[in-house]
Amino acid sequence: MSIQMGGFDLGALVLPQPYLLFLGDATNPGFAKTALGLADWAPHLCVGEYGVGGHTVTADLPFMTPKDAYENGARALVIGVANAGGIIPDQWMGALVEALEAGLDLVSGMHAKLESFPRLARAALDHGRQLIDVRTPPSGIPIGTGRKRSGNRLLTVGTDCALGKKYTALAIAEGFKARGIAADFRASGQTGIMIAGAGMPIDSVVADFLAGAAEVLSPDAAPDHWDVIEGQGSLFQPAYAGVSLGLLHGSQPDVFVVCHMVGRDHILGMPGLALPTIQSVIDLTVLHGRLTNPAIRCAGISLNTASLEEAPAAEEIDRLTGELGYPVADPIRRGPAFDRLLDACLA
Amino acid sequence: MSIQMGGFDLGALVLPQPYLLFLGDATNPGFAKTALGLADWAPHLCVGEYGVGGHTVTADLPFMTPKDAYENGARALVIGVANAGGIIPDQWMGALVEALEAGLDLVSGMHAKLESFPRLARAALDHGRQLIDVRTPPSGIPIGTGRKRSGNRLLTVGTDCALGKKYTALAIAEGFKARGIAADFRASGQTGIMIAGAGMPIDSVVADFLAGAAEVLSPDAAPDHWDVIEGQGSLFQPAYAGVSLGLLHGSQPDVFVVCHMVGRDHILGMPGLALPTIQSVIDLTVLHGRLTNPAIRCAGISLNTASLEEAPAAEEIDRLTGELGYPVADPIRRGPAFDRLLDACLA
Repeated sequence: MSIQMGGFDLGALVLPQPYLLFLGDATNPGFAKTALGLADWAPHLCVGEYGVGGHTVTADLPFMTPKDAYENGARALVIGVANAGGIIPDQWMGALVEALEAGLDLVSGMHAKLESFPRLARAALDHGRQLIDVRTPPSGIPIGTGRKRSGNRLLTVGTDCALGKKYTALAIAEGFKARGIAADFRASGQTGIMIAGAGMPIDSVVADFLAGAAEVLSPDAAPDHWDVIEGQGSLFQPAYAGVSLGLLHGSQPDVFVVCHMVGRDHILGMPGLALPTIQSVIDLTVLHGRLTNPAIRCAGISLNTASLEEAPAAEEIDRLTGELGYPVADPIRRGPAFDRLLDACLA
Repeated sequence: MSIQMGGFDLGALVLPQPYLLFLGDATNPGFAKTALGLADWAPHLCVGEYGVGGHTVTADLPFMTPKDAYENGARALVIGVANAGGIIPDQWMGALVEALEAGLDLVSGMHAKLESFPRLARAALDHGRQLIDVRTPPSGIPIGTGRKRSGNRLLTVGTDCALGKKYTALAIAEGFKARGIAADFRASGQTGIMIAGAGMPIDSVVADFLAGAAEVLSPDAAPDHWDVIEGQGSLFQPAYAGVSLGLLHGSQPDVFVVCHMVGRDHILGMPGLALPTIQSVIDLTVLHGRLTNPAIRCAGISLNTASLEEAPAAEEIDRLTGELGYPVADPIRRGPAFDRLLDACLA
C-alpha cells in the first residue's frame, strides 16, 4: 500500500505497529529524539523500550526484551537513536538481530540503509522480516517551480537543530483542529513520518530536488485548509542551512513560528559557534521566504522551557514577549500563552 | 585509478579523452552549457560535435558521426546538453547507441544514470564500452563541521543560474596562475568536472551532506594557496538556493565574485520572477558567509557581456563600476578591467 500526496506517490510508508523503541547506548537525550518524540506524541504506538549496556536515556516506558515486546503486541523495533553521520555501531547489532529473531520488523530513520549491514540483511532474510528505511525518499521528485499553491501554510523554523520544531508543528496542528480548522501536520523528518505515517524525509533528498520535495509535501489544498509543516535545521547552522533554505522556499509559508530553547547559547555540537538571535532568524526567514511568498510573516515564538520550573518559565515567556513584541508560548505547557500564539497564526 | 582530494576519495574521475560533443536536439544554447563550456575551455579535448535532426545549437566544431570521430581519435561521446529534470529523451537513443557501436564510451552529467536506460546498458555490454556518470557523487561524504581550513578560498556566486560562474572561476584560476600564484580550479558541476578531471557534483549530493561535500572539495592547503571554487545556482533561485547556501557555508570563502549577465532581468525559466539586484546578492552572501568565515568580502563583479559589442560592453562595465563601487570585468573579454578584478581578489 502506498500513500498518495497531491497526486505524487510518497512511497509505502504504512509501518507495522505498535513499536518497541530502541535506545541503543544513548547517554544524551539529544541523540534520542526519535524515541522520545514517539513516546510523547504517539504513546498508543509504543509498548516498551529496549537498549544495550551503558544506555542511560529512557522514554519512561517499560523495559522489554524483543521477545516480551512481541508477546505484548509489538510488531516493529524502531531505532530511536541517531549517531552523527547516521551509522549503526557494532554494539547495537546483537540487539537488532535479536529483534528480527523475535518476529519484529526493523524501522530506521538513519542515513545508512538497514540493508547495507550484512548481518541485518541476513537475519531479516532468515526470519522473513522487513527492514524499513523511513529516510529513503520517494523516486521521481520534481525540480521546484516556485509556483504559488492554494491553501494556507505554516512552517516552524529554529535558532538551531533539535529544540522543538516538530513538537511545535504537531501542537499547532492539534490546536488548529481543536478549533475546528482543517489542518494537516506535514512531516519532514523521520520521527515525524513515523508519527504521521507519511511525509518527506527532506534531508535525504538529492540537493537539486530540495525545494521540489518541499513543494510535493504540501500540495494545493482548499482555501481554508492549513498545512502545518515540520521545519528542519536552521538558516544559521553551518552543516544543514541548505536544507532549511530549500524547505523554506518550497514550503512557501504564509506564517512561520520561530522555535528556540531556553539556555541554548551555541549551535548543538559546535561549542565555538554562538546561537543567532531570534530577531535575526525572523529577519532572515522573511528575507528568504518573500521569494516564494511575498506575504510571509512571523506569528510568534515557540519557546522550549523544559529546563525551567513553572514560575521561571512563565517569567521567561513574559520577558521575551516584551522584548520581541511577538506572542511567545511553550507548546508543551500550553495555557493562555499558547492560545495567543494560535490566534496570531490565524490572524 | 581514483583521484584523492584532501585524503578523501573523489571517485574514479579520470575520463576517456578526447571527446565527441553530443548536442542532442538542442535549439537553446542555455541547455547546451556542457558542450559549449567544453569547447571553450578544453578545445584540445574536443574533436568534433554531433546531434540529431532539428538541433540548431553548435559548438563551432566539425560535425562528425561517432565512427568518424573515433577514427579522428575520440574515445568518448559527452552528452553536452541537459533537459529540465535531466532525462534522456527517446530521440537521442539511436545516436547514443551508434556511439557505443563505434567504440566510444558515454560520459554524462545528467541526473538520470546511463545504466538506467536498458537500451544503453545492453549496447554498452554488447560492445564492451563504459557508461560514466560524472554526476554520481563519491560515497562516504561527511557531515559539515564548519571548521576553518588553511589556505585561501574564492567562490563565484550569481544573480541566477547559467550566466558565468564556471567561466569566471576558470578565468580567475588561470589569471592567478599567470601571476605565479598557486591556485586550483575546484569544479562543483558536471562540465567543470569534465574540464578539471575531478571535483564534486554538489547538486547531486544528499541534502544533509551539502556543506560537508563542499568542505571536502576544498581541503586544507598551504597558506599562500588559492582554491577557486565554481559556484552553483543563486541564493535567490527558488529551486536551487539550498544548494547555493550549502556550497557557500562549506566553501567558507575569503573572497567572492558576483556573476551577472547583461540583460538578464528574470530568473531563467521563471518569467514571473525578477532577478535580484547585484547589491542584494552581495549583502546576502556576506550575511550567510560570515557564519563560517567572518572575514568574507566581495572582490567585485563578473559581468557576462556576450550580448553586447565591444564599445557598449565597455560602457556598461564602466557604468556598473561607478554604480556599485566594485571592480567589474567580463572574464571572456579580459583586458585591464579583469586585471583590476584580480587585484581586488588578492588585495
